[in-house]
Amino acid sequence: MIVNNNMIGGENNLSAIMVIFGGTGDLTHRKLMPALYNMLLDGLLPEKFRVVSIGRRDKTEEEYRNEVRTSIDKHSRNKVDPDKWAILNDMIKYYRFDFRDLEGYSLLKDYLYQLDKAAGTMGNRIYYLAVAPEYFETIVQGLYKSKMTKIEGAWSRLVIEKPFGKDLITARQLNQKLLEVFDESNIYRIDHYLGKEMIQNIMVLRFGNLIFESLWNNKFIDNIQISLTEKLGVGSRGGYYENSGAMRDMVQNHIMQILSLVAMEPPIKLDTDSIRTEKLKVIEAIEEISPEFLRDNIVFGQYGRGIIDGVPVQGYREEENVPKDSMTETFVALKLHINNFRWAGTPFYIRTGKRLGTYGAEIVIQFKALPNILYFKDSNIQEPNLLVIRIQPNVGVFFQFNTKDFSTHHDLVTTKMDFSYASPIQGNTPEAYERLIYDILRGDSTLFSRWDEVEAAWTVADKIIGYRKQSKLKFPNYDAGSMGPIRAFELLAKDGRRWWNI
Amino acid sequence: MIVNNNMIGGENNLSAIMVIFGGTGDLTHRKLMPALYNMLLDGLLPEKFRVVSIGRRDKTEEEYRNEVRTSIDKHSRNKVDPDKWAILNDMIKYYRFDFRDLEGYSLLKDYLYQLDKAAGTMGNRIYYLAVAPEYFETIVQGLYKSKMTKIEGAWSRLVIEKPFGKDLITARQLNQKLLEVFDESNIYRIDHYLGKEMIQNIMVLRFGNLIFESLWNNKFIDNIQISLTEKLGVGSRGGYYENSGAMRDMVQNHIMQILSLVAMEPPIKLDTDSIRTEKLKVIEAIEEISPEFLRDNIVFGQYGRGIIDGVPVQGYREEENVPKDSMTETFVALKLHINNFRWAGTPFYIRTGKRLGTYGAEIVIQFKALPNILYFKDSNIQEPNLLVIRIQPNVGVFFQFNTKDFSTHHDLVTTKMDFSYASPIQGNTPEAYERLIYDILRGDSTLFSRWDEVEAAWTVADKIIGYRKQSKLKFPNYDAGSMGPIRAFELLAKDGRRWWNI
Repeated sequence: MIVNNNMIGGENNLSAIMVIFGGTGDLTHRKLMPALYNMLLDGLLPEKFRVVSIGRRDKTEEEYRNEVRTSIDKHSRNKVDPDKWAILNDMIKYYRFDFRDLEGYSLLKDYLYQLDKAAGTMGNRIYYLAVAPEYFETIVQGLYKSKMTKIEGAWSRLVIEKPFGKDLITARQLNQKLLEVFDESNIYRIDHYLGKEMIQNIMVLRFGNLIFESLWNNKFIDNIQISLTEKLGVGSRGGYYENSGAMRDMVQNHIMQILSLVAMEPPIKLDTDSIRTEKLKVIEAIEEISPEFLRDNIVFGQYGRGIIDGVPVQGYREEENVPKDSMTETFVALKLHINNFRWAGTPFYIRTGKRLGTYGAEIVIQFKALPNILYFKDSNIQEPNLLVIRIQPNVGVFFQFNTKDFSTHHDLVTTKMDFSYASPIQGNTPEAYERLIYDILRGDSTLFSRWDEVEAAWTVADKIIGYRKQSKLKFPNYDAGSMGPIRAFELLAKDGRRWWNI
Repeated sequence: MIVNNNMIGGENNLSAIMVIFGGTGDLTHRKLMPALYNMLLDGLLPEKFRVVSIGRRDKTEEEYRNEVRTSIDKHSRNKVDPDKWAILNDMIKYYRFDFRDLEGYSLLKDYLYQLDKAAGTMGNRIYYLAVAPEYFETIVQGLYKSKMTKIEGAWSRLVIEKPFGKDLITARQLNQKLLEVFDESNIYRIDHYLGKEMIQNIMVLRFGNLIFESLWNNKFIDNIQISLTEKLGVGSRGGYYENSGAMRDMVQNHIMQILSLVAMEPPIKLDTDSIRTEKLKVIEAIEEISPEFLRDNIVFGQYGRGIIDGVPVQGYREEENVPKDSMTETFVALKLHINNFRWAGTPFYIRTGKRLGTYGAEIVIQFKALPNILYFKDSNIQEPNLLVIRIQPNVGVFFQFNTKDFSTHHDLVTTKMDFSYASPIQGNTPEAYERLIYDILRGDSTLFSRWDEVEAAWTVADKIIGYRKQSKLKFPNYDAGSMGPIRAFELLAKDGRRWWNI
């Protein structure tokens, strides 16, 4: 975000081996390999770069590479070009190894050392843990004991995916284990939402435009809505989701991160720590989340049967690996206050859920109403100015405003100015993982979560999860294909507001 | 602007005869008749409505009507539909009469009276003076002496076109003569710019949107630019233009009106007088225009030969009816200050001229720069936020802002959100005269100039014209097809600013 040098492949300090634990897994095939391929196309991959994919299964390098090629063709925004693929093909190694076998790490160490010599990768390492979180500790210990994490004159970076613990205590424990081996500055906690272009654009829009910067506070903004909605259900991931729920799956990480970026004070500089410090202050300024507060300001939901895009779908309790009496929430709507000078009095409404009627992630900034005089004297409703930041699937910004209705010679109409980026599906905006891997290579951790941010978010989430556990809820309480429980609508209606589905 | 009733043709109070003095002239054929036809299509013309076109030439009603039909086909945004035309055809009368003949008015009076009885037009009159201004007084006297201006139980409205005098003194004299016959409230001074949709939209945008209303002052706005540029030269109108120049032709009327609408305080109500009162205050708040002030803040220009759209064109002094040593200005650029709490310190730059490189009318609101920190720390140039109100030929609003450059993974790019109305040429926005005639029928004079506004504008214009007369200017000083004299660029450059050609 801050480095303005145009990256030229082959710069020495970016040369590295990326070691993927979980090299045959879903994340590697669907996200990491396509991201590497697109980075190559964009000239963002160093010349001296190797990928060592670790898997337990017995397969030849050629077999593995062919599988990767197939995955890229299927999942990448760019189809495979044979000449370009040939370059990446040669960079990919398959290394058979059961990472639970602590004895095997020294062999891996030797292998990487030999590869360094052959490829000129200088001892630099990205250890990417694309595995279930219960293995994080094992792998880190293995790396530590074989002294693979501190190579003289080189860097070693650890990349982990959510969940970072399942509550504040387990997150702290995990973090402690990681910190015994890696410095905080070398731990990259992936929140792939932070890699999305429009999420990064929040800061640019706010701090790069006088008109947004000037209006971005409680004097001009009536409320802010953050909606992350999914049409999908839990699919085959019921087992994971039972331990997670919407709170851990979406709120503790993605939504808290988005909230921070939307609400933060301008950082003094654009460096990683200045930004993270301001983001942390937002979470810390969230008004005390007591059970009394939550009683009126949170809505949990779980989907029942319903219809999505004309197709009947089952309820959450009927999904694979989900108990028939599950009390896991698949929907959360929450009203928050941030008690600082900028935001006191301006509520933040957040909602996220599975099996809803729409799929999308967007932030709606609703500006205050004008007095009901002049053009609004005789009209029934004053449509407010809205700034909508669309994160996915559409990527862009639009602004809703009022203008003269030219066709009638009278009256106002509400219309919009739209700025759309090309749809990511059409291949023009880089995907989150491209950006994130590139930043790991460069050592820019701005778009990753710092421990104290994670900790602060868990402090908030823990209170909410604790409240949910002691609440008597009647699940399921919304139909698949709806926009969530009725109470989620009442949450805003009682404030005289409504969710914007733009 | 304020009346929200949907007009249904045939309402009694709108029934009227529109008497056009100058019925065979250019304005009638190019603007008034096409406007009436489009009003008919839009359902804005009363059922009981007649047009009496007065001309000196001997022609039958049928000949006249056919000429009108041809004109509508040529100039209207909608082509002639035979069925619709048949309705208008029957409404149009041709009345042969030399309006300098004061004896003839009583015959006209009788004719209109008979027409009232036949058509049910209730004695209501619009007297539209589509003639050279030297005849205004004659016609008004004729109407007065034959007692045609005050009919019991009916209304009579006078419509005049610019120029309203050639300076403050002659304007006052003319006004005095009109006021002897018509009340100020029945005098409709046409400034056709005020009939343009986007000009009317200025108030709606400002007072119908919190984000514009909140930013519309010297705390957030760096400067405001009003540009009315033409590619055309004076053509066959050199005689008129010699007595006018850009000051009288554009600045005293159109530009002063636009300036008023852009800078005015919110009126207490949307009625005509409340709005005009606020507009007047703007002109009265213009900082003292002394010769010392003008020396640094005004640029006059006159075009020489040049090339427009690839075609060589002659200089102003070579145009028909223009003396070879003419000192008439065809270009004015001016910096103004409005000394009130809202605008002190925010300059208004205005420019207008003939034979320039572009044709258009637009208002550019340039917002202040942000501090050169964060995203602007290492960049050379910070592109400001601009709000551009496009009046013609494009009609719309656009907003220039900064966003993340998704293609490079770095940096900011300046882009725009655009809200365009369909091009008026394509027939979707009503033209100024439709709106204005409709308002005259309804008795809504909001979009017309009140005498004290005209007077205040002449007070400003007189000082500038007086200064020009005593200045030693070297004309011609800009090439046709350029954007005016070099000094017009220096006017902004010395303030560290530039004209926006968006």
